[in-house]
Amino acid sequence: MEDITNIHYGPLPADSPYVKPFRFYYTQNGKQKNWDLLKVHDSVSIVIFNVTRQKLVFVKQFRPAVYHGLVSAEAGEDGRSIDMKKFPPSLAVTLELCAGIVDKPIPWVDIAREEVLEECGYDVPSERIEEIMSYRSGVGTSGSLQTLFYVEVKDEDKVPAAGGGVDDELIEVVEYSLEEARKLTAKGNVLTSPPSFLFGVLWFLTNRAPPVKA
Amino acid sequence: MEDITNIHYGPLPADSPYVKPFRFYYTQNGKQKNWDLLKVHDSVSIVIFNVTRQKLVFVKQFRPAVYHGLVSAEAGEDGRSIDMKKFPPSLAVTLELCAGIVDKPIPWVDIAREEVLEECGYDVPSERIEEIMSYRSGVGTSGSLQTLFYVEVKDEDKVPAAGGGVDDELIEVVEYSLEEARKLTAKGNVLTSPPSFLFGVLWFLTNRAPPVKA
Repeated sequence: MEDITNIHYGPLPADSPYVKPFRFYYTQNGKQKNWDLLKVHDSVSIVIFNVTRQKLVFVKQFRPAVYHGLVSAEAGEDGRSIDMKKFPPSLAVTLELCAGIVDKPIPWVDIAREEVLEECGYDVPSERIEEIMSYRSGVGTSGSLQTLFYVEVKDEDKVPAAGGGVDDELIEVVEYSLEEARKLTAKGNVLTSPPSFLFGVLWFLTNRAPPVKA
Repeated sequence: MEDITNIHYGPLPADSPYVKPFRFYYTQNGKQKNWDLLKVHDSVSIVIFNVTRQKLVFVKQFRPAVYHGLVSAEAGEDGRSIDMKKFPPSLAVTLELCAGIVDKPIPWVDIAREEVLEECGYDVPSERIEEIMSYRSGVGTSGSLQTLFYVEVKDEDKVPAAGGGVDDELIEVVEYSLEEARKLTAKGNVLTSPPSFLFGVLWFLTNRAPPVKA
């Protein structure tokens, strides 16, 4: 996953299907204002708990936006002069919940079901997936909706050779014990994870985790 | 705050200081790939607990990106045909932690101190502000760092006439009891809040909230 070379960047093409930037104009309390923003897809995110192993199932992947955020101040206009020793791509490998964008007109729980299979290799019917809550995945430059789901899986739900993503995705599936997951939410951490991950983990620990044995 | 009229939107100007979109090119495991992304500012976010009143202090504001996310599928190319009865701007008034972007070279805790004063009107020295943890505020289309802080304030820290934002900001300060805050993190909610808010609230309830009286 971390075999990453030949990095550079340039202007966003006008026909990008993923990033559609706008300037939004409005009048608030009689004052004209504007705000620059981005149209992004709504999405789903799933907390997966393997009850056979008593492990949470997360995904790791290289995230270009995180890498760009790390290097862009030092790497010049097009990124061709990045110091790859100082900024190894592993710095931008994130730890996240299984997730995916809503890009077809089916119930969101069915999109969650597909992502659990495609990314993590567990085949579970939608009926076993519990909807938890919805929130805005961003509020500053983008404002799409994300719905958080929860599913308990067993080892026998695992499909051989499934997981890891589809098409060109390179996704590593990792397992965390309850105690390891608890440490992720501890003071002092600097995580390469989004806040939706932290909320999902803490929500699980607060509301669904098996009680700690004495 | 919700007196909002004359909404429309158009292409992002090339010189936007806030939204800088790029296409990022790389080779992963021998395969050429690209990813469209956005450079955004790093930021701070602060959980504020008023110990005099035993209330959490949050902010509400109209967020253009959230409104755009709600209406853009129906409002046509430039938004001039938005049905304002169907989509009142109040739908895009968010509930958030006090927060701000890192836009000057001072310690992040001092930026947090300024935001607590400017947005919420409490003047507290940086020494009283506790750093909790850092994470990536996004991983998909943007990947900036956000650091979460925690501060306990008292009624006597309040500065008359301060709070509500600076320049053109219109920010409403609201207070939530512990019980009201707990309900925000409950199953079934559809919140106009980002996941960093939900994590901050649940982190506080788990780690810093006074014990519930029997």
